Amino acid sequence: MSDELVDRLRLVRSPGIGPVTYRQLIARFGSASAALDAVPDLAARGGGRAPRLISRAEAEREIERIAVLGGRYLVFGQGLYPRALAELDDAPPVITAKGDLKLFDRPLIAIVGARNASAAACRFARQLAYDLGQQGATVVSGLARGIDSAAHDGSLETGTIGVVAGGLDVFYPPENKPRQQAMFERGLVVAEMPPGTEPRARHFPYRNRIIAGLSLGTVVIEAAPRSGSLITARLAAEAGREVMAVPGSPLDPRAQGCNLLIRQGATLVQDAVDVLEAIRPIQPGLASHRASRDVAEPQWIDGDGDALGLVEDLLGPSPVPVDEIIRLSGVPNGAVQIALLELDLAGRLDRHAGGKVSLRPA
Amino acid sequence: MSDELVDRLRLVRSPGIGPVTYRQLIARFGSASAALDAVPDLAARGGGRAPRLISRAEAEREIERIAVLGGRYLVFGQGLYPRALAELDDAPPVITAKGDLKLFDRPLIAIVGARNASAAACRFARQLAYDLGQQGATVVSGLARGIDSAAHDGSLETGTIGVVAGGLDVFYPPENKPRQQAMFERGLVVAEMPPGTEPRARHFPYRNRIIAGLSLGTVVIEAAPRSGSLITARLAAEAGREVMAVPGSPLDPRAQGCNLLIRQGATLVQDAVDVLEAIRPIQPGLASHRASRDVAEPQWIDGDGDALGLVEDLLGPSPVPVDEIIRLSGVPNGAVQIALLELDLAGRLDRHAGGKVSLRPA
Repeated sequence: MSDELVDRLRLVRSPGIGPVTYRQLIARFGSASAALDAVPDLAARGGGRAPRLISRAEAEREIERIAVLGGRYLVFGQGLYPRALAELDDAPPVITAKGDLKLFDRPLIAIVGARNASAAACRFARQLAYDLGQQGATVVSGLARGIDSAAHDGSLETGTIGVVAGGLDVFYPPENKPRQQAMFERGLVVAEMPPGTEPRARHFPYRNRIIAGLSLGTVVIEAAPRSGSLITARLAAEAGREVMAVPGSPLDPRAQGCNLLIRQGATLVQDAVDVLEAIRPIQPGLASHRASRDVAEPQWIDGDGDALGLVEDLLGPSPVPVDEIIRLSGVPNGAVQIALLELDLAGRLDRHAGGKVSLRPA
Repeated sequence: MSDELVDRLRLVRSPGIGPVTYRQLIARFGSASAALDAVPDLAARGGGRAPRLISRAEAEREIERIAVLGGRYLVFGQGLYPRALAELDDAPPVITAKGDLKLFDRPLIAIVGARNASAAACRFARQLAYDLGQQGATVVSGLARGIDSAAHDGSLETGTIGVVAGGLDVFYPPENKPRQQAMFERGLVVAEMPPGTEPRARHFPYRNRIIAGLSLGTVVIEAAPRSGSLITARLAAEAGREVMAVPGSPLDPRAQGCNLLIRQGATLVQDAVDVLEAIRPIQPGLASHRASRDVAEPQWIDGDGDALGLVEDLLGPSPVPVDEIIRLSGVPNGAVQIALLELDLAGRLDRHAGGKVSLRPA
């Protein structure tokens, strides 16, 4: 068992250390082991109590459980980790996967949509997934009811990846157990949460960012205006990926989300040819230069005792862009990041979308 | 009876003098009367026989017929002529109209679509026209079966304009007679062709350019991929107007044309709010500076005997942009235009979309 994996898991699984904080710790200290040692001091400097780190034994038990399951860990910054996913600012530090990892090597296209989709839309999703598979793409979805299941079924023979919101060994919804087991054998299933985790509402947006982040583009079929599928579409757009939507009549309430997406700039697609035409200009190789950035040489800006105070003074309960903090404080970027890291580990910082941060109300 | 109107009609109704040629004749000679006198010489210089001009008596008979019908003439370059229509390069020199001309003064929005549209789409068109009418817009369409008729019906109470492909007094399709008559009384009907003209296939694209040209934007509902409605949409785009389309499921063959338009950049609209949002940025007043350009002072570039020869040498059976002729010949724009006019009147020039011209094969 790799000590480095154990140490990384201890960081990743500890409450209060999210993907961004994790990445900054690794960048700052060069290894998970050094980061673990430093966390208490950093938190103290930030003026709070250190997060409770999970024990070595707990991490080892999880690793054992994944091994028994026949799964494996993919670690950010290491070779097997999917390049496109590594591009996300909040890429998962570690994912677990069971199945055929070679499916990552083909163009990945996500198909997502409503759990309560119409039968016609499910048939459409299944056919689209089949056609994309025939063209050499791997289809990514979320192993949910409705569109997701249809997309996996249509591409099981050619290559399909399911990203689950809970643990790798948890079947949700329960009737998807045979589908998920078939994908262990003939596709690939991916999870960010530790094994045994029952999915909760807050897990789904995290799961959705992985679907969007793995894929060159995301196709949305029959989504309600405020649905998880539209979150996936937004995350895909934020990651610079292609967002595609299948339109419907204004008289069909289930078409509202997709029509809205198209109004906002998503590409209208009607078949696999449209989808492939939309993603063709994207070069997956572009991602490669970023895949290993968390193992970059640690940079230590010589401690400036005032940086933390300056940064803290500029922060309040309203989220502000980190760039603004840097500009207003006159403190170099590196020192600002360390101050934020210290506040973060002290439980005094909230991180928001778009790189904004705020001070957590006491 | 205005002599100028009689002379203009004699030019307009003469075979071989299209809207572009007409406009150049007026610009060159300052009046229709002077243009009529010049046509034989111009044609001779261009190396052909002069077009047969209709007689004064023929023009007077048409004017009498429109008067009996209760219609009137709107002449390009004069006050009542719709400003937006005057912006077209091939704006009709003269249109006949019967009904309420004040309907031109409100924001004009075209609704067009399939003659064999589904009942649901017809209901949708009727409701959209009604809602746009309630918001103060005038709805423009083509008095055809299906979507056009539904759009007129939905906006009859608030303001609707029908552009017919044949003469003002011709009812096509025949079952639309009561609708067209109701629009004489409570709406407005417009025709480019002389009264009594039965519409033929070639008239419909001309009619469509008037629908597009009158309107700030065109909404397409249920159109086949190679249909007149898509021609209207293309003409609207070429005239710099907003093109909007109502989407449908990829499984619905009648949605193909609209979905194609949206893929090509048309704005997806689902209701009147979407339509008004799309056209709001457009200032109808922008058109005004162009409305009177055919009464501009005539410009005569001193006859350069070589210009005609140079231009003729550069022309062949393949359409080429006039700009290219100007550049390659080194002849000033004005002289090139006159040479083209001479060739045109001699029946030796074909004018094509996008300002291209070719020499007609002998």
